[in-house]
Amino acid sequence: MSEIEQRRQDVSAGLAGLKADALLVTSAANVRYLSGFDGSNGLILLTPTETHFFTDPRYEIAAKQNITGKVHVVKGPLIAAAAKIIQRKRIKRIGFESGWTQYDAYQRLRDALPRSLSLVPIGRVIEERRMIKSAAEIDIIRRSVNLNSEAYSRVLKRIRPGVRELDIAAEIEFQMKVLGAEKPAFDTIVAAGPRAALPHAHPGSYRLAGNELLLMDMGASLQGYCSDMTRTVHLGKPPKKIRDLYNAVLEAQLAGIAAVRPGVTAGKVDAATRNVLKKHKLDKAFVHSTGHGLGLEIHEPPRLGKKDPTKLAVGMAITIEPGVYIEGLAGIRIEDTVLVTQNGCEVLTPSSKEFIVL
Amino acid sequence: MSEIEQRRQDVSAGLAGLKADALLVTSAANVRYLSGFDGSNGLILLTPTETHFFTDPRYEIAAKQNITGKVHVVKGPLIAAAAKIIQRKRIKRIGFESGWTQYDAYQRLRDALPRSLSLVPIGRVIEERRMIKSAAEIDIIRRSVNLNSEAYSRVLKRIRPGVRELDIAAEIEFQMKVLGAEKPAFDTIVAAGPRAALPHAHPGSYRLAGNELLLMDMGASLQGYCSDMTRTVHLGKPPKKIRDLYNAVLEAQLAGIAAVRPGVTAGKVDAATRNVLKKHKLDKAFVHSTGHGLGLEIHEPPRLGKKDPTKLAVGMAITIEPGVYIEGLAGIRIEDTVLVTQNGCEVLTPSSKEFIVL
Repeated sequence: MSEIEQRRQDVSAGLAGLKADALLVTSAANVRYLSGFDGSNGLILLTPTETHFFTDPRYEIAAKQNITGKVHVVKGPLIAAAAKIIQRKRIKRIGFESGWTQYDAYQRLRDALPRSLSLVPIGRVIEERRMIKSAAEIDIIRRSVNLNSEAYSRVLKRIRPGVRELDIAAEIEFQMKVLGAEKPAFDTIVAAGPRAALPHAHPGSYRLAGNELLLMDMGASLQGYCSDMTRTVHLGKPPKKIRDLYNAVLEAQLAGIAAVRPGVTAGKVDAATRNVLKKHKLDKAFVHSTGHGLGLEIHEPPRLGKKDPTKLAVGMAITIEPGVYIEGLAGIRIEDTVLVTQNGCEVLTPSSKEFIVL
Repeated sequence: MSEIEQRRQDVSAGLAGLKADALLVTSAANVRYLSGFDGSNGLILLTPTETHFFTDPRYEIAAKQNITGKVHVVKGPLIAAAAKIIQRKRIKRIGFESGWTQYDAYQRLRDALPRSLSLVPIGRVIEERRMIKSAAEIDIIRRSVNLNSEAYSRVLKRIRPGVRELDIAAEIEFQMKVLGAEKPAFDTIVAAGPRAALPHAHPGSYRLAGNELLLMDMGASLQGYCSDMTRTVHLGKPPKKIRDLYNAVLEAQLAGIAAVRPGVTAGKVDAATRNVLKKHKLDKAFVHSTGHGLGLEIHEPPRLGKKDPTKLAVGMAITIEPGVYIEGLAGIRIEDTVLVTQNGCEVLTPSSKEFIVL
């Protein structure tokens, strides 16, 4: 049995516990997880014994070549086609992904099915399973992380005063793609000088000056799997104040990494980074959570936020990314992708975290 | 009054007709349309007299600098913060975007509000307004289209046997960004040889051979506004069969353009392209619709599909993109971005549609 078939079987086996006879999978990432399909319009109906895959004619050739199970190529809404199969199979309780199904789509499904059939909202059960990565998934994530760091190294050499933020972002994404990435895992952030204090700045036409911070937050998607890394460097010799800030963020980041091990709550890892920044009176400048899971999506459970009770477990891939943002002065973030292991964790990101001066 | 304020006022003025006292705007594109906010986490509560904007601390500085109205910076779910304001303002009927609100989010909102308050699902009213572009929007779309074509011209010069599909895609997206695009409007499609028959192929490590088709479907996002273009070229001298196919698709595309004018239904434009391909016995190989609206999203209403009753109107920006896909033989698509005008339409895309032989 292939890994994908194993996943389906595991999810199917959980259906009874969810009080559902079948499951309609609508999230693109979950569809990919259970079928390998990487198009934009796919839907899976999973029964205890069968997999029905629905897509439109644009993907007919690809779907028939690559997807095991019954492939239905449909003109019009996929959900209507799925509703027909649901009735034909005499399913009584159909689970749906309530975190991914829009209110209107739910109503359309409801209207297409007899009232005797019950629609069961199921939470993020597939996402919960996805939190723990298989050896094959870890291998791809590792390659995605390495690819991302290689792109970073290549671009680092070309950064100099006069270059625009958007040139650097373009170069980062170009290198990712040449190295084999499907695409960036998210919009690359390149923010220089005071703009680095905007945690999610879009790269603009601002040209690098001689003496300032440069924050780069970048990730690749390789075979669907994301990587995520942030590095902050300085053009010209940094003033002591900036160096001190950098060291505080790095200290917090290392404390976060040191806190990662199976059984620890996500909230405790968040507290570890936050406490270091508090010691440096920088906790108010740390305006986001410590990190997040990643895999087929750039943001997946767990979330490493304040008081988050999720227990870390072997095989989770997460980011550790504290940062400080002080309007008009500085923005510094340091982020690695990290794998939870039996003994603690492995930092997958190979790029140096020394404060690089260009 | 700024254009953005005018948009809000127009939407507010329509609230009574929707039987709602206020509107919760959750779609990222609609939030951008009504506020200019381009981050990933924003929410607007629009009452007849006030605009409340909600975001998280990552966007605090940017939001306070750029957004008019009351800005609420919130830790935790934005919807919970909005629910408080809804109660404080004694709103009785709150409209929500039912096409953009997930079932779970709807339930959370429902649970956060007293039962006496009614939740009114409103359709795509903002999208309907967005179909007609203002002069300022048309100006940006025009620049987005020109930027896209300029990126195409630059890349065309570098295509030769031995280059991989993904190198071409990387170069296209690099050029877009260097030319000032925020990002590609969608994943660039570059498909060579038999892979061109997959309408939505991901660019892969396939290296161009000497004698084959190459299909490129590309779009830029500039200040939020999308462009969209497809060109199919041939490496080496095309066989007559391929040249005939190309000419049939081009004839269909020109027929589609000729059919565009105010008052005509989208379905009629679709029929115009489809009838030409039918004449050439190629209608079964045309597996998607003729086009779609575009603007802040790459796919917006109207959809130019079979029997679509939407009437075209001055100021709509749409694509015209028939294609034929024959497994193992060929995939050819030709696509322009087109603006509906008083007298018919203006083809915005400046790139030549001659069958280019490289």
